[in-house]
Amino acid sequence: MVTEQQILSLIRQLTPNSKKYLHDDAAVIEKNLVITTDTLVENTHFTLKNYKPEEVGWKALAVNLSDIASMGAKPLYALVSLSLSKSLSEKWIKGFYKGLLACAKKFKTQVIGGNLTRSKEINITITLIGKTVVRAGLTPATGKRSNAKAEDLVFTCGNFGESALGLNILKRKINNFNTLIKIHKMPVPQISQGQHIAKKTKRASIMDASDGLADCIIQIAEESNVKIIIEEDKIPVSYESKKAAEKLHISLLNLVLYGGEDYKLVGTASKYDCKKLKNIKIIGKVVKGKGAFLKQKNGMVVKLDMNKSFKHF
Amino acid sequence: MVTEQQILSLIRQLTPNSKKYLHDDAAVIEKNLVITTDTLVENTHFTLKNYKPEEVGWKALAVNLSDIASMGAKPLYALVSLSLSKSLSEKWIKGFYKGLLACAKKFKTQVIGGNLTRSKEINITITLIGKTVVRAGLTPATGKRSNAKAEDLVFTCGNFGESALGLNILKRKINNFNTLIKIHKMPVPQISQGQHIAKKTKRASIMDASDGLADCIIQIAEESNVKIIIEEDKIPVSYESKKAAEKLHISLLNLVLYGGEDYKLVGTASKYDCKKLKNIKIIGKVVKGKGAFLKQKNGMVVKLDMNKSFKHF
Repeated sequence: MVTEQQILSLIRQLTPNSKKYLHDDAAVIEKNLVITTDTLVENTHFTLKNYKPEEVGWKALAVNLSDIASMGAKPLYALVSLSLSKSLSEKWIKGFYKGLLACAKKFKTQVIGGNLTRSKEINITITLIGKTVVRAGLTPATGKRSNAKAEDLVFTCGNFGESALGLNILKRKINNFNTLIKIHKMPVPQISQGQHIAKKTKRASIMDASDGLADCIIQIAEESNVKIIIEEDKIPVSYESKKAAEKLHISLLNLVLYGGEDYKLVGTASKYDCKKLKNIKIIGKVVKGKGAFLKQKNGMVVKLDMNKSFKHF
Repeated sequence: MVTEQQILSLIRQLTPNSKKYLHDDAAVIEKNLVITTDTLVENTHFTLKNYKPEEVGWKALAVNLSDIASMGAKPLYALVSLSLSKSLSEKWIKGFYKGLLACAKKFKTQVIGGNLTRSKEINITITLIGKTVVRAGLTPATGKRSNAKAEDLVFTCGNFGESALGLNILKRKINNFNTLIKIHKMPVPQISQGQHIAKKTKRASIMDASDGLADCIIQIAEESNVKIIIEEDKIPVSYESKKAAEKLHISLLNLVLYGGEDYKLVGTASKYDCKKLKNIKIIGKVVKGKGAFLKQKNGMVVKLDMNKSFKHF
């Protein structure tokens, strides 16, 4: 089996200009537009049994909006490509669109096109176009993963581990912790927070933690050629999450780092700029060197390891 | 089973601003950008047995480029979203990308992003962004289906029926007519022809015949609120196609009208503007009234019927 990482390197090798484009959550085109695409596949990302159609519709758009948020941009337009199985009812399709359009309305995004075709499993690919809120040229493209520098601080904008806990609760059919299930099914993209960061910082790297907090830290460290150390006891975790992890007998730290789908923004900026940011929490620092590390509560520093990362692929 | 038409009306009903956006091959955004998306699904649009990976890659991009051509635009950027099955080899993925990038190079399109996920069947959704070659505001958005007016002429830019014949030959495993098979597998989008039409006409409706010649005529008549009559003996058909239809004992006219996937441009423009166009063939006219009609070789005029149209859905 070919791994996601192998395919990605292959694509980057083969594609001209890949260095310019294929390294961030979204690509910047025509000076100030950002464009991104993401897919939800039945049985990979959701099941008809566990999800209401409204929830699938919301999530399909929300995960794309989160990529726009991580570029500090304002969402504008969406294209919705649907591959649907023959057995789907009109009621399901209606519910799906209701959920999608509710999310579109909330985040001021217009659905301007798409495509419709048949397949065995449901496959929803959405492409989103947004506009950067800072004038290109004035600042280095805000949000790029390669923007981190030694002396920067690492910040996050919300709790971690909640989505992966929600997924576990859903799978084990526990009748409790509905907040966590909702966070998993209907994530809220941090659109205004992304724009706030873009406006207030001169230079920032931003990612959304779609593949986990550890993945963000590893990628930023790699693309920026720096060393990053985050501290376990500074990572925001909710009381609900602690209770749920206890009940499920699973390691909360593992889900916090590698669980994924939290869709919270993670980034780096200078100490000076971080002071201007609202609703962030400092969880670590950037130093000279290489690699991504976690300082555990016991004081030990361990390397963050991509192979533990949550993989849909 | 819900039909494609039912789902499309449902989507148009539910979506705000659908009248503005959801009626053409591509949407116009930010004054002069056009954006479109199209999907190829394994077993719906191709099979691993009948297609080389290079051919799938070429076709996946080419069908999108054809939508850009039908807006008279210049392609710029592509996002490639792949849902791949676990069993696919690295060799297949490499071949796919080679085909895709060969098409991208030929039509000067840059791959700037995408997405990668798992699914049972291969699902390839590409989004393309292009730029109109005429300044918006100077002319009514070129290419819109609603642009036809009484007295216009109907033109086409190539042969019809070839792709559907190619598909039939492929299915019946006939060792001949390789040209038709190639046209089916690796269509050539009419990018320069689309721009030529956009530059030379003050007002034109243009579509690509992805769902068949009849579908183009029906849609333009409907969206423009006019009557269109095309003439059977004026529709361009190749000698190869006539021979193949004879060999296969199938109605060539049926494939010409309803076969689909020809990716030739079909449109209407004023008589005056049509004179300025190169490489077109006049096949009919627009008059006052409603509906789309075919004047047969025997002189009879019959209504073109969407229900006979080739359906992937």
